[in-house]
Amino acid sequence: MSDKHESPLDILPIVSTTMADQVEERLREYITNKAFIPGDAIPKELELAEALGVSRNVVREALSRLRMLGMIETKKRRGMVLAQPDILSGMERMLHPHILGIDTRKQIFEFRLVLEVGQASLLFARKTDEGIQKLEAIVQREAQVQTTKEKVECEIAFHSSLYEMAGNETIKRFQAMLMPVFEYVVEYETEHQFHAVGSVTHQDLVDILKTGTAADFASGMLKHLEPHIRLLS
Amino acid sequence: MSDKHESPLDILPIVSTTMADQVEERLREYITNKAFIPGDAIPKELELAEALGVSRNVVREALSRLRMLGMIETKKRRGMVLAQPDILSGMERMLHPHILGIDTRKQIFEFRLVLEVGQASLLFARKTDEGIQKLEAIVQREAQVQTTKEKVECEIAFHSSLYEMAGNETIKRFQAMLMPVFEYVVEYETEHQFHAVGSVTHQDLVDILKTGTAADFASGMLKHLEPHIRLLS
Repeated sequence: MSDKHESPLDILPIVSTTMADQVEERLREYITNKAFIPGDAIPKELELAEALGVSRNVVREALSRLRMLGMIETKKRRGMVLAQPDILSGMERMLHPHILGIDTRKQIFEFRLVLEVGQASLLFARKTDEGIQKLEAIVQREAQVQTTKEKVECEIAFHSSLYEMAGNETIKRFQAMLMPVFEYVVEYETEHQFHAVGSVTHQDLVDILKTGTAADFASGMLKHLEPHIRLLS
Repeated sequence: MSDKHESPLDILPIVSTTMADQVEERLREYITNKAFIPGDAIPKELELAEALGVSRNVVREALSRLRMLGMIETKKRRGMVLAQPDILSGMERMLHPHILGIDTRKQIFEFRLVLEVGQASLLFARKTDEGIQKLEAIVQREAQVQTTKEKVECEIAFHSSLYEMAGNETIKRFQAMLMPVFEYVVEYETEHQFHAVGSVTHQDLVDILKTGTAADFASGMLKHLEPHIRLLS
């Protein structure tokens, strides 16, 4: 945040924090230390301003940040209360591929590879016949489509259905957020590489889901993603 | 965010968004649509207020949120510029176990199980002799310690070292954030269950790292985590 790379001397500058930064930090500490739980009332703006010795404007700015994160909400007749925060809301606001650095994009791409392989245990705990039928329908459609666009759609539909089946809302939303970054990296690599499929196909993965084990599935997914994994360095 | 569960009629209330919510949203759209990249200057507060037809206070509040997320930063002599945002900063502010709902905590716990298994490919792309020696030292220490506290420390040190070896900063920070939630769930389960180890031990995992494959490791980790995976429903 600071201009540390612009200083001609090899000395760290004082990091400038605004009053709003400090008040936001203090409020989060306060909420944590007092062990507030969702639904608990938060002191009013004016009370907070007086206790902290700052202006109401600064308190309002800090509260606005917490409201954006979903940490607090305003209830009719009750004022501000601690909310059940949405842990992904801050991240969702920022996952635009072009504003992320190349390193971050690369890490996010790897993150997705990790999730695909790692959710094997969830899939085997939660697989259903309907879910497997849905996957089979996608595989059949995939065999018939001609255009690159349609093939990419099937690719995305197949993997999205796996996340659906794994049944973890946090992971599902997380991967949906990563999707644009994933597509960006795929474009960044050549179209040719994207269609390079490992030795295990979508059909093979469905067969493993039907008759194999979680370990078989993790192993199969590693082979399916092999063209991407090979590029890890 | 709205009071929808308090309404006596089965009708959705108008969701109240503050001016700051709207301006924040508009600014994020603007940044995305204009395809700003990190380092690009953002119009000044006053200009934005005039263009949006709102007060400077509202613009300041919205900019403060974006600054908190690390989307913009203030540079000496250049004013506000688009920053390389830190995608995890919003989330880090909220991962206090006691303010998360039981469902979210459960999902986060599963998320961590998924990462442990799924990062096998990263580990095999990036394992080093030093890293393996570090893991072996932890296993040796683990065999000697007596107290529960020391055992838990070794447990955490072993798994943290794996994330270190996998070498993905985003995943590493993510799991570090999940740690308190993980510990919370572990407390929530009985102490007894936490020490139930699957049929594959830390030593076995190190041996796989030395002579096995990524698929062997994923399979081994599934067995190591089996006492937790068994509880999935």
